[in-house]
Amino acid sequence: MSGSVQPVLLNGQWTISQGTSSFQAVNPVTEQALPDVFPVSPWNEIDSAIAAAAATSHEMRGWPGSRFAAFLEAYAAEIDARAELLTDTAHAETGLPKSPRLKDAELPRTTNQLRQAANSARTESWRNPVIDTAANIRSMLGAIGPVVVFGPNNFPFAYNGAAGGDFASAIAAGNPVIAKGHPCHPATSRIFAEAAVAAIRSTNMPAALVQLIYRTSHEDGARLVSDHRIGAIGYTGARQTGLKLKAAADTAGKPIYLELSSINPVFIMSGALRERGASVADEFTSSCLMATGQFCTNPGLVIVPSGEAGDALVGAVADRFSKAPIGTMLAEGVRKSFSTGIRTLIDAGASLVTGGHSGGGKGISFQNTLLKVSGRQFLVNPEVFQTEAFGNGSLFVQADSIDQMVEIAEALEGNLTGSIYSDTAGGDDGDYALIEKALRTRVGRLLNDKMPTGVAVSAAMNHGGPYPATGHPGFTAVGVPASIVRFGMLQSYDAVRAHRLPLVLQNKNPGNVWRRVNGEWTMADVT
Amino acid sequence: MSGSVQPVLLNGQWTISQGTSSFQAVNPVTEQALPDVFPVSPWNEIDSAIAAAAATSHEMRGWPGSRFAAFLEAYAAEIDARAELLTDTAHAETGLPKSPRLKDAELPRTTNQLRQAANSARTESWRNPVIDTAANIRSMLGAIGPVVVFGPNNFPFAYNGAAGGDFASAIAAGNPVIAKGHPCHPATSRIFAEAAVAAIRSTNMPAALVQLIYRTSHEDGARLVSDHRIGAIGYTGARQTGLKLKAAADTAGKPIYLELSSINPVFIMSGALRERGASVADEFTSSCLMATGQFCTNPGLVIVPSGEAGDALVGAVADRFSKAPIGTMLAEGVRKSFSTGIRTLIDAGASLVTGGHSGGGKGISFQNTLLKVSGRQFLVNPEVFQTEAFGNGSLFVQADSIDQMVEIAEALEGNLTGSIYSDTAGGDDGDYALIEKALRTRVGRLLNDKMPTGVAVSAAMNHGGPYPATGHPGFTAVGVPASIVRFGMLQSYDAVRAHRLPLVLQNKNPGNVWRRVNGEWTMADVT
Repeated sequence: MSGSVQPVLLNGQWTISQGTSSFQAVNPVTEQALPDVFPVSPWNEIDSAIAAAAATSHEMRGWPGSRFAAFLEAYAAEIDARAELLTDTAHAETGLPKSPRLKDAELPRTTNQLRQAANSARTESWRNPVIDTAANIRSMLGAIGPVVVFGPNNFPFAYNGAAGGDFASAIAAGNPVIAKGHPCHPATSRIFAEAAVAAIRSTNMPAALVQLIYRTSHEDGARLVSDHRIGAIGYTGARQTGLKLKAAADTAGKPIYLELSSINPVFIMSGALRERGASVADEFTSSCLMATGQFCTNPGLVIVPSGEAGDALVGAVADRFSKAPIGTMLAEGVRKSFSTGIRTLIDAGASLVTGGHSGGGKGISFQNTLLKVSGRQFLVNPEVFQTEAFGNGSLFVQADSIDQMVEIAEALEGNLTGSIYSDTAGGDDGDYALIEKALRTRVGRLLNDKMPTGVAVSAAMNHGGPYPATGHPGFTAVGVPASIVRFGMLQSYDAVRAHRLPLVLQNKNPGNVWRRVNGEWTMADVT
Repeated sequence: MSGSVQPVLLNGQWTISQGTSSFQAVNPVTEQALPDVFPVSPWNEIDSAIAAAAATSHEMRGWPGSRFAAFLEAYAAEIDARAELLTDTAHAETGLPKSPRLKDAELPRTTNQLRQAANSARTESWRNPVIDTAANIRSMLGAIGPVVVFGPNNFPFAYNGAAGGDFASAIAAGNPVIAKGHPCHPATSRIFAEAAVAAIRSTNMPAALVQLIYRTSHEDGARLVSDHRIGAIGYTGARQTGLKLKAAADTAGKPIYLELSSINPVFIMSGALRERGASVADEFTSSCLMATGQFCTNPGLVIVPSGEAGDALVGAVADRFSKAPIGTMLAEGVRKSFSTGIRTLIDAGASLVTGGHSGGGKGISFQNTLLKVSGRQFLVNPEVFQTEAFGNGSLFVQADSIDQMVEIAEALEGNLTGSIYSDTAGGDDGDYALIEKALRTRVGRLLNDKMPTGVAVSAAMNHGGPYPATGHPGFTAVGVPASIVRFGMLQSYDAVRAHRLPLVLQNKNPGNVWRRVNGEWTMADVT
């Protein structure tokens, strides 16, 4: 492939790709292709990345968390030093506003995640060290092996395969990462990888700790995630592609952590509507249209009482939707898929309240779109009415009774979040209990009086949920130490001689490491 | 189906099966069919079990762990009250000795597991409660939903689908269990279910907390594990069947925890041989022939140095094998599969040192069998030489050098355990480090100077390991609280009003529950 095509990062070297096809990102505001040309990597290139990662994984076995912490912190500093370049590049590739979104919100979130992961790596507590002195058995989580991270289109920084949450977690657990940059923002991913190379050098880490490829064939993607040298996979993105990768990884027994589609149901109780309908309409509009609706936790399904109060809310939201600016979407594919989703919902019997057509904003855009359907209709075909329309739109379901609301909750698929709005005086508490019981096991995170779009980087966060929102309901993609745990394997030491134990499991506590010793959590030495 | 066929346990009722085919267990000592006839359950029966379990799961949501603890403890007492009947029945169905194996070892282990799980349910600490007061987000593990447990043939008590480790863990996490009894010991499973019914009544638990079916078609088994109403699956048994169930469960996004085949490599360093060769031969023989070799952690592959010392060990083991009594195998299927495994290894180039033929013991039996192969030969076809021969046999690999031993370690598949024997003076420490680095990530539990067959019920135990030993290297089937965690889903509460939080996440610590509050483990209230 000619020298004008961007190289891939293999084993520390920016290497000219041997691929025979290439692609360019598109600026969604101008709808023009951007100048840089990126390669589609052929299998031999991917294979060499896996080989280098496997050798590095072997080399790093048993290294203390402090080494990975040092890298993650140096990397965060290298990113800070490139803030302007990253912001400009990501803006051109995604159309997302530079400020406050990219520069003031997403980039600080990204470096914060890297630093939180570094802290957890340094304190080693994510390893869940368990010591049973009577049986002389000790266990902890150890590195799982090379991790492949597929980043999504909608967060060029915070979920980037070479810098986001999965990346930070995989490194904190002591694993090398093969990053698959999203084809919507390849130049952004390249800058991250350049920063990573600088941090690798300054902290004396192995060259293959971070590698980057931009694109593969579907076949090679499946081959990559099922390769025996791979430890685990993180994937955030569209359901269809994710499920294909899951099928391949499952066959090889490789843990794959998915974050797929979610419509994030919001239940609004009648008391809350009476009490603060206008404010609910404001909150919803702001949450639903933020970033042109392109958040995994966008509220795509809202269940309200039928009758006057529910109608009033639909009207208030429609009014706000039609007056609000129309944002730019990330890519033509996103607009198409949004349009198809809206069409599917309408074909199933939803009626259009406002919006419904392409255009209206700068570049790639689609009108802010509100649909509604009766609870009865929803329950006739609940699967179709849960079609995700990823973008600046939502479906309101008008339920005739609390019983019908409960039925709707019980017909829901797995989701990342579920929200319930209720009155502050306690008048909705009986209804709340009914909805909560149905909703709780169907969502990873339950919210009260709050829209789902803010995903705090908290130890108690669950950015996960039951299938098909993810592939396993026990794990979260956001929040340390829980997100790191995904990239560890359980390692038990049975009668292993004292001097051969990992530092974390020796009698002397190597630092301030929380360990469970004979059933009690402690930072003390074992005596 | 006629009244002479044993009923199945559906929703608290012993129900005449509607199945049209049936089976009988065989006494492996007499090789005669036992009198009781058991049904193969058709889909509508399985479907009604799922429906009852799903309704019960919904009913029990939010119940405190103390209720499940009370049931588990009452159940353990009911089992104790039936110790003689269980022992006699299991002996007839499996041929395993009544004493010490069934009565004095496996049954106390089983009730101990139930009581440990009860204790963990009562203290709620398995839920891993996390509280972030600044963000007002709290998380814990909650019940995952109905669990299907498939028990194996080789532990009629401790891994029984209606009484074993997976069962205890699933109930402790607050889930109903659909037990699939193993067809080799259906009457044993029935007695457990009778004891469970008594405990359900005495502790006022829902009738469908424990249900029992004996057998299904392969097709219905796959349908069961992929049903949308199921929360998770535990399976211990043969690899082929397990992988078929995994494929079905994976497609539906259902967590399935497998414990499949494992050959449990044992590496013996030259210093250990010089120092205590005879004692190693004793330990190995005892571990390998215990229970006629029918343990998941049976040492099926032993890597020794070639030359005089290694030859001497092979000779010493061969001598012990030929003199040791030949045990009875669990079933004709086990003998056949052992025989096929031995044949595969010989066809690949292993040579027979001793044994190799059917018979020699009471009833269903096969000679204690020792095979050997050179390290060079092993490395030509490492996959075939890792064929599991489940029974009273093992393959010795004679390695020319420590480098070759490392190569062998690196060619190993995922296993439950890996053992290294080294001299006590430290002369083997250099070689140990090389082997350990290759072996550590390929096994769930690493042992020093110890055979793998004892699986202590310890919090630090890992009875798990990388694929294909299990389906996910992050989980263990033995040891609480880790084994319970498998049957929980992560539930985050974001801004949920204080009085609506589960007790475990409220500011006041409801008992002595270990919680991680703002990064620190504590039993204190949140202030």
